Amino acid sequence: MTQPNVPQPPTITAFAHSPDRGRGLARDMAVRWALEEVGRPYTVRLVSFEELKQPAHRSRNPFGQIPTYEEGDLALFESGAIVLHLAQSEVGRQVGRQGGLLPLDADARMRAVMWMFAALSTVEPVIVQRSEVLLFEQERPWFAARLASIEERIAARLDELAVRLGSSEWLDGDFSAGDLMMVQVLRRLGASDLLAANRPLLGYVARGEARPAFQRAFAAQRAVYEGAG
Amino acid sequence: MTQPNVPQPPTITAFAHSPDRGRGLARDMAVRWALEEVGRPYTVRLVSFEELKQPAHRSRNPFGQIPTYEEGDLALFESGAIVLHLAQSEVGRQVGRQGGLLPLDADARMRAVMWMFAALSTVEPVIVQRSEVLLFEQERPWFAARLASIEERIAARLDELAVRLGSSEWLDGDFSAGDLMMVQVLRRLGASDLLAANRPLLGYVARGEARPAFQRAFAAQRAVYEGAG
Repeated sequence: MTQPNVPQPPTITAFAHSPDRGRGLARDMAVRWALEEVGRPYTVRLVSFEELKQPAHRSRNPFGQIPTYEEGDLALFESGAIVLHLAQSEVGRQVGRQGGLLPLDADARMRAVMWMFAALSTVEPVIVQRSEVLLFEQERPWFAARLASIEERIAARLDELAVRLGSSEWLDGDFSAGDLMMVQVLRRLGASDLLAANRPLLGYVARGEARPAFQRAFAAQRAVYEGAG
Repeated sequence: MTQPNVPQPPTITAFAHSPDRGRGLARDMAVRWALEEVGRPYTVRLVSFEELKQPAHRSRNPFGQIPTYEEGDLALFESGAIVLHLAQSEVGRQVGRQGGLLPLDADARMRAVMWMFAALSTVEPVIVQRSEVLLFEQERPWFAARLASIEERIAARLDELAVRLGSSEWLDGDFSAGDLMMVQVLRRLGASDLLAANRPLLGYVARGEARPAFQRAFAAQRAVYEGAG
């Protein structure tokens, strides 16, 4: 029998076969990280590429993507929405102690949400374009020109973000869901020179990756790649 | 003297010179629409393209974009965050009556937020790519091939969305901030054949555009283009 006030662990979906060879760049990583930050156990349903487009998974995500999130009667997709849900669920519990993924102050909380949208809507799209060009357009005659044009745009965005970050540890006060999402988006640049050339952001990403919750999440997705998950 | 419990109207920023010739496709449109849906008066600060990249505007938005939002001590950018802020501010006031941009039920409210993220993070990026190709790559040798590839991806996304919408009026129950954002993102396809070829979504967008709040917002941004704003 379910114990009162002890919610069942939510279930997320992730790729059965990591397309990034366990580097934690897929979109389940932000959700795993948020779950670890708020201290929620979870279970993972692994989905093959074939299963992504089949009706069972489409019912969880109409676009046939991961991650998805199921918790009791609530079913969500979109990593941004899932992370925000986890962060908001935690706000009520964190009164009187440090930590959590959203500030208690209403204005500061809204600014943290703003950085989540900035990560996903302003910074990520051009980074994803670069990945797509590298994956699918290497043989196209326009490859070099397209890549150069995209990398110029990414570098400009990174400069703008670094100016705002300045010498701060995080984007707005304490570490928040906005930082979690921004760090994860920047990680998609991987070992590229773009991130290496921007020292403030390189440090920012390193601070995110140094968090114990990140490391637990990273190890969990890595275990799937290594066949232990 | 400020009256108690009567908040000052927020100030948003918009382009002084509409790049879409008054068609309401810029990112201030979703914010204007949300303000109209929740019945909030607002003032507009028009910004020239030169001013976008200058320090005064960069302090409002580090990426030098519109819209921004200022309300007392709260300063936001990212249209998604601003619309969510307006929608959440309204939740408390709507108890006992119809309307508002977010459902009162917590799970349904989270699903509405999920559709906002889906609009901005899953549907919009490829639509923006198409606009960029049409604007900047017409003279490039790869133009036709790139455009065809992007339009194929957009059509697939639209099909997936239409399947989920089915014969419903809106994506999840009553009209919500998720529908507002999705309709506005789809509107960026403008008069293209892509939207015309997808009858369910064509009707969905038309239902959004028929809302009185949409029409007031559209007229307000149109007035700027016509020199009356």
